[in-house]
Amino acid sequence: MARWQPNASQRLAVAALELFEEQGYDNTTVIEIAERAGLTKSTFFRHFPDKREVLFGGGTMTGLVIDGIAAAPAGAGPLEAVAHALDVIGREAFTLDRREFGARRQAVIAANPELREREALKGLGLTTAMIDALERRGVPGLTARVAAELGALAWEVAYERWRDPANSDDFGELARRALTEVQAASASC
Amino acid sequence: MARWQPNASQRLAVAALELFEEQGYDNTTVIEIAERAGLTKSTFFRHFPDKREVLFGGGTMTGLVIDGIAAAPAGAGPLEAVAHALDVIGREAFTLDRREFGARRQAVIAANPELREREALKGLGLTTAMIDALERRGVPGLTARVAAELGALAWEVAYERWRDPANSDDFGELARRALTEVQAASASC
Repeated sequence: MARWQPNASQRLAVAALELFEEQGYDNTTVIEIAERAGLTKSTFFRHFPDKREVLFGGGTMTGLVIDGIAAAPAGAGPLEAVAHALDVIGREAFTLDRREFGARRQAVIAANPELREREALKGLGLTTAMIDALERRGVPGLTARVAAELGALAWEVAYERWRDPANSDDFGELARRALTEVQAASASC
Repeated sequence: MARWQPNASQRLAVAALELFEEQGYDNTTVIEIAERAGLTKSTFFRHFPDKREVLFGGGTMTGLVIDGIAAAPAGAGPLEAVAHALDVIGREAFTLDRREFGARRQAVIAANPELREREALKGLGLTTAMIDALERRGVPGLTARVAAELGALAWEVAYERWRDPANSDDFGELARRALTEVQAASASC
């Protein structure tokens, strides 16, 4: 029986990133990634459906966003609920010790059209997850769609700033600031 | 020398839609689409890079959006410039005689994951085109991003309503109404 592997998916992501940097995304196989992580190919496929997915957490973010919006205080408005979810992302996923990984990951994605495409689709999936989670809080359809789009944009802006080597702010803090800026910008449209 | 074919790309789109409905997207080849349209395979590839693209106009929309935003009156704010572009889309692309085609096209896309993926990526490409066009009008970066996201959402909402068989309103009119609703929703977030 395989023994339980703590953080297998993170070890696979780190191994994949190293290999993509060293020899390119196209030249790297799932077997090589698993070997570098000290794991097997079948463990890889328990965590990720394909090679493209290994830098995208295989659904972890979606789960954090859905739970984060659901756990926002009862009286919180739509964007406040989104801010709550972005706080959770900052505590659970975009911690400062992973900032350097985030910057390297982004450079690899930017260099590869297949990964850029997957990133774009993941972003849309997250927006849809936000819409559903907001509707479950009773937010009307169109307002949920607008809040999710504004939230996704604030996420993008905050993530750009967070992975800047000069940054030392928490992701959640950057996200709240970005949300405020996005709201102000929407009022001036 | 091949003679000039008026509306070749529209004839190809109509032929493709019929074949996708009759025998499925996966079972249809580019050669069959070209034959049904009375054109050659090489004409197909002059208009579209691959089979997936045939229902997406091969960049026509992007051109209309960029030109529409650029042509908005000098004093128009960001969302007003987007509304101007959506008017152009309504006049040039989503005319009422193409509404039935639009509804059938959407049913085919909804049934096929590859086409849904291409649709999602086309939507992101259009948003990027809007951002660039707004920035060329002097709209600051973040405001351009917010206006493009709100504009894209209004487009989506208007397109859902436009292809409803019960609808007889112009796309441009529906888009303006949707933009107003989206703006109101963003103020209540």
